[in-house]
Amino acid sequence: MHRALLLTALSLIALSALAAAPAPARQDQATLERNFDASIDQREMGDWLKTLAAEPNHVGSPHDKQNADLILSLFKKFGWDAHIETFNVLYPTPVNETVELLGDKPFKVSLQEPDIPGDTTSRSEQASLPAYLAYQGDGDVTAPLVYVNYGMRNDYKTLARLGADVKGKIVIARYGAGWRGLKPLLAQQHGAIGCLIYSDPSDDGYSVDATYPHGPSRPPHGLQRGSVADIPIYPGDPLTPGVGATPAATRLDRAKAQTILKIPALPISYADAQVLLSSMKGRVVPASWRGGLPITYRVGPSEPSVHLVVKSDWKQKPVYDVIAMLKGSVYPDQWVVRGNHHDGWVYGGTDPLSGQIALLEEAKAMGELARHGWRPKRTIIYTSWDGEEPGLLGSTEWAEAHGADLKKKAVLYINTDSNARGFLDVEGSHDFEHLANQVANNVTDPETHVSIAQRHRAKVRVDALEPKPDWDSDTVERVKADAKIAADPKRDFQIGALGSGSDYSAFLEHLGVPSLNLEFGDEGDSAGVYHSRYDTFEHHSRFVDPGFVYDALLAKTVGRLLLRLADADLPQQQAGNFYDAVARYYGEIKKLAGDKHEAADTQAKLLTDKGFDLADDPTKSHGAPITLKPVPKFEFAPLENAIDRLKKSTHGYDDAFRKNAAKLPDSARTKLQGIMLTLDQTLAPNMGLPGRPWFKNLVYAPGRFTGYGAKTLPGVREAIEDERWDDANKYAKLTADALNAYSARLDQATAVLNGK
Amino acid sequence: MHRALLLTALSLIALSALAAAPAPARQDQATLERNFDASIDQREMGDWLKTLAAEPNHVGSPHDKQNADLILSLFKKFGWDAHIETFNVLYPTPVNETVELLGDKPFKVSLQEPDIPGDTTSRSEQASLPAYLAYQGDGDVTAPLVYVNYGMRNDYKTLARLGADVKGKIVIARYGAGWRGLKPLLAQQHGAIGCLIYSDPSDDGYSVDATYPHGPSRPPHGLQRGSVADIPIYPGDPLTPGVGATPAATRLDRAKAQTILKIPALPISYADAQVLLSSMKGRVVPASWRGGLPITYRVGPSEPSVHLVVKSDWKQKPVYDVIAMLKGSVYPDQWVVRGNHHDGWVYGGTDPLSGQIALLEEAKAMGELARHGWRPKRTIIYTSWDGEEPGLLGSTEWAEAHGADLKKKAVLYINTDSNARGFLDVEGSHDFEHLANQVANNVTDPETHVSIAQRHRAKVRVDALEPKPDWDSDTVERVKADAKIAADPKRDFQIGALGSGSDYSAFLEHLGVPSLNLEFGDEGDSAGVYHSRYDTFEHHSRFVDPGFVYDALLAKTVGRLLLRLADADLPQQQAGNFYDAVARYYGEIKKLAGDKHEAADTQAKLLTDKGFDLADDPTKSHGAPITLKPVPKFEFAPLENAIDRLKKSTHGYDDAFRKNAAKLPDSARTKLQGIMLTLDQTLAPNMGLPGRPWFKNLVYAPGRFTGYGAKTLPGVREAIEDERWDDANKYAKLTADALNAYSARLDQATAVLNGK
Repeated sequence: MHRALLLTALSLIALSALAAAPAPARQDQATLERNFDASIDQREMGDWLKTLAAEPNHVGSPHDKQNADLILSLFKKFGWDAHIETFNVLYPTPVNETVELLGDKPFKVSLQEPDIPGDTTSRSEQASLPAYLAYQGDGDVTAPLVYVNYGMRNDYKTLARLGADVKGKIVIARYGAGWRGLKPLLAQQHGAIGCLIYSDPSDDGYSVDATYPHGPSRPPHGLQRGSVADIPIYPGDPLTPGVGATPAATRLDRAKAQTILKIPALPISYADAQVLLSSMKGRVVPASWRGGLPITYRVGPSEPSVHLVVKSDWKQKPVYDVIAMLKGSVYPDQWVVRGNHHDGWVYGGTDPLSGQIALLEEAKAMGELARHGWRPKRTIIYTSWDGEEPGLLGSTEWAEAHGADLKKKAVLYINTDSNARGFLDVEGSHDFEHLANQVANNVTDPETHVSIAQRHRAKVRVDALEPKPDWDSDTVERVKADAKIAADPKRDFQIGALGSGSDYSAFLEHLGVPSLNLEFGDEGDSAGVYHSRYDTFEHHSRFVDPGFVYDALLAKTVGRLLLRLADADLPQQQAGNFYDAVARYYGEIKKLAGDKHEAADTQAKLLTDKGFDLADDPTKSHGAPITLKPVPKFEFAPLENAIDRLKKSTHGYDDAFRKNAAKLPDSARTKLQGIMLTLDQTLAPNMGLPGRPWFKNLVYAPGRFTGYGAKTLPGVREAIEDERWDDANKYAKLTADALNAYSARLDQATAVLNGK
Repeated sequence: MHRALLLTALSLIALSALAAAPAPARQDQATLERNFDASIDQREMGDWLKTLAAEPNHVGSPHDKQNADLILSLFKKFGWDAHIETFNVLYPTPVNETVELLGDKPFKVSLQEPDIPGDTTSRSEQASLPAYLAYQGDGDVTAPLVYVNYGMRNDYKTLARLGADVKGKIVIARYGAGWRGLKPLLAQQHGAIGCLIYSDPSDDGYSVDATYPHGPSRPPHGLQRGSVADIPIYPGDPLTPGVGATPAATRLDRAKAQTILKIPALPISYADAQVLLSSMKGRVVPASWRGGLPITYRVGPSEPSVHLVVKSDWKQKPVYDVIAMLKGSVYPDQWVVRGNHHDGWVYGGTDPLSGQIALLEEAKAMGELARHGWRPKRTIIYTSWDGEEPGLLGSTEWAEAHGADLKKKAVLYINTDSNARGFLDVEGSHDFEHLANQVANNVTDPETHVSIAQRHRAKVRVDALEPKPDWDSDTVERVKADAKIAADPKRDFQIGALGSGSDYSAFLEHLGVPSLNLEFGDEGDSAGVYHSRYDTFEHHSRFVDPGFVYDALLAKTVGRLLLRLADADLPQQQAGNFYDAVARYYGEIKKLAGDKHEAADTQAKLLTDKGFDLADDPTKSHGAPITLKPVPKFEFAPLENAIDRLKKSTHGYDDAFRKNAAKLPDSARTKLQGIMLTLDQTLAPNMGLPGRPWFKNLVYAPGRFTGYGAKTLPGVREAIEDERWDDANKYAKLTADALNAYSARLDQATAVLNGK
């Protein structure tokens, strides 16, 4: 009640300020933001979280639909123009599953998670989804097990050196080091007939902290569900790539959908994995492959074999996106889009509902502002996605369905997802890096009472002094360079590049709409319950963000971004930051090319000298390394020229903006906005990346073989990584063209700024 | 029998060859070495190992004395002039020990190791030494436990950041990362009142391989005994530093002996450590501090406290060195000295007896050669040391007692200790690096049938491609540089620098007598039974060197070194290799100085910005880092000039040697030998290292705070590491003087070679 009174008082002040100055000046923006903040109510957010996370809310569950309806009604209550948009997608659900170790002492793996004593929110009436990996390939297979560490590409190189392979075997991989979906995919590509993925305690179990309910970490029988759709090819409905999954859409045959795996796969717990891994024979693994179980990790094969069965129901099912709009008063055809998904794997306490309650609270606060007379100049669109977990279904289908509009109108897409206590982390389009910095400079961290920018900078700098054990030397160098920039108050702190793993993909990487993703974290810990039945309201409020303090802070931070973008009379990009990022990424690629050259050379000499044979222990299984191709000189000149030009164009634009933007006549301002609105789409020409044309952005992409992790300048970088030398040269040219188009567009904007 | 016949035949050929050419030409040397090899009998070595390792043979045990007597009788049987030399040293033995966790559920730690089923050699009649750390401080203390990771200096820096300290506590450290003796020493320096050291399974237990008897690794109740005398101050008898512990020697009061610790300390097993570590409260450790136990590692303090009692008998006891001589026929006053200790901690199957049986077999083979008419030109002295384990007692006292003679006569000291199947590893004085290479080029690896040099080179190169997880970026760079050299057949492969941990210390580091240490390893695995009751004949012959193949290979390799050194008419040093090593080490020091400068600078700025506070989680204990001193510019010019001069002098000598050595007249050759015999002693002027004057060598030393690990150019390097800026400048000058003295001596040799 006290809080409500305060809000009213503040709102009145805001209202009078707005009335006095219809085009808000700097002062007014600050007042508006203070009023916005005054609406943010942590207790209310906690209550919403409790309701939204009360029952399992995976796609197709009754509670998922109830949540969509609740969110819709809240938007309407907040004064937004809202509706539910439904898409019909191919969405498999488990019918029948088995994992068992055969032999004299057969052992059946448990595929459901027990209740946690004390966590009332983990005892629901409605059914949880059992252990499941959406879009695995179904099957009934029996074979020995082979341990492949994280199951990433480098692990198969190591496996070759260990004299082992996975042909005709079932692999067991641990979670981590790369996207889950690559594990069965790579296993399949290497000839495996099935795949198990388990959560090793060294990655998110007792090695990290006490296990739930005593601490945040994964308990012995915790399971990580997830999608294994091949989303680095394309996310969304496997049957409708590139178009919205409306009733009218043309659909592929399921057998032809590229993103569905061919082999069965299931996740298991570490309690069960320990039994399976203890049955392994063969060579002891290298030190970096060891997990935290009290066993000797061996490559395998297991004795006896493992029997794996998965059978799914492959019918189409609806996903429910909630879409809400606050129409712009001045530029209604310029959209600022903001989203967070509402579907979880079970209760979704942290993932995705911690971000969802921030989104709802922002919408409420903007509704309050609107109720007191404020109208955004631009249209604000709030989206609460369904079906993110199985494959970014809701956001992808919506973005595909509304692609033409978005390409014309979208200024920026702002995404959030899970959130936790700790430090600000921003990733996204680097021409909005400066804006992110400005916002971060104006938000105060509740634990330290400095700005979240200052705290972020401190973290970057201290991390560089205290390297993590799994950082390779490239990472150490990069982190050190980042820390130098973070230590310089005259420079913006750097934001990361977006890969995939949440709902920005279709916007940024398919449409070329610039995007930002924000979260707090690193102090609160939700990794241990990620995609498990224990990601509950209780866990979130005990271990991830007690008091919903940082969930509220997320709302304040994102709210500021939106308010500034929605009301700004001038474009919010600072182009020099984009140049800096591109120059940095190109530097990495040059080093990569040099390293590859040296590695191929060194390996060739060693093979000539039979060095690998001589260094191997003849009493242990071993094999030759996978041969590296000789590395040619690359045709980087066009790309280097384009980067030089980008430097000139970005600096030219930023200088002209600083000098002339404030005094720009209205007509020029409108023209400038028009140019800058679609600037980033120059980076996403139509041909797309090799083998995955859905991904059109030539600066930002999820790695084909990292899945979540970004690959910047991906056409070139991945071609070099994958030894596709012709593609490297081809995409150096295509990327140069895209950067030149960006520069040319920017030069037009500069001309407008310079009154030409 | 077959073998004996063959030997006789070969010996006759050798004999006739020797008779034809009294000064052996290249051909004769090869024949001699073939005959030497023909005497090497793996089965006989295995028999000796079985006998020597039949009962516990620690200092003071009946079997240790029996072994000394057996070794003496063997030397005599082989035709050597042999005797036992006895020293009386302060040697503590346990009287009473307790480790217990107090509280409601008290737990008593077991301090003796159970029998291993199947290993008959681990069930002896005579008593094994229980858990014990020689020269710990005795005491009866009760306090909470604090976990300090490896208990090295960096760990205390991390502990400060974690907001924890060890004042008034008992620390528990895991074995590894540095010498055992530093763990209680550093604990004591940081205010701890007791110290436990345990073997974590991630370092040598089940994480590494199956545990004994199923595999080589440490079983759950295995214990690592060892010395914690502060041997980086001085090794040997704590009461007689610098002089032999003869009856007539003046002895210090025990209370004044610098190398005896002040706090009680004991080793425990990981089965027991798991119980203690599970009682820890407080902050979860950083990832690099985690071991392989299935628990959440926490800093502590423990609840409840731990009670630790150690009481020792501190009487003087005898150690028995066996000394054997084969007198030189031409240069009797030039000694080639070779040693390996015979005392173990329990059975000593691998450590030290695998090296001891190689030494005995060499002595037998030389005896055979001598029986067939060969006489070494130089005197060969074989030594079988007692009391190495508690603190290099036998070798240090003997080297101190015979220091004057050794400084006049010793050409080289060659040491071995534990041995295993695998790759050659040579460490020592770099002017003998070329000789080590030549020998390694002439010995064939039994597994791969290439030379052990070629196999070593392959290993270095492949290791550089497959970095270990615990390598920091400096190590990765160094390993890559080493690999480049190893890949160049025109260059000698590099040998490592000697620190400490075996019997070469007194020779190399106190007297300045050049030394080499040789071993094979990396395929056979004895780490898991190191200093435990399970280091048995059975374990060695199953997991470390089946068939004693590499123990025999060690005899062949060392035998060649000795034969060549004993019979060569010309000095065996190649000085350029020494220059290369010194230049490399100085490069490391320059980088160290730069890194320290940058680190201090970065830290100072972060402290000014309160960066550490801001980056810390306020809900967890944390503290400020230990403040780094600002780093001045160092006065390195004298050292750089000395290194430049060293380059000229070493290259001048090597060139002159190549051109003129073969045609040198007898008198010049004698003169040359006289100069080169004592060349390395120029590196060990009398003042010694700061705070530890016993260590006189200014190029090679064990690290004050690494213990075993070498610190090269230690006066300068450690002064920078320890922020003793004045010492850095002072020792840069002193080290320059020593290098200049080396160059000056070498210039004299060059003048002789050039006929001046």
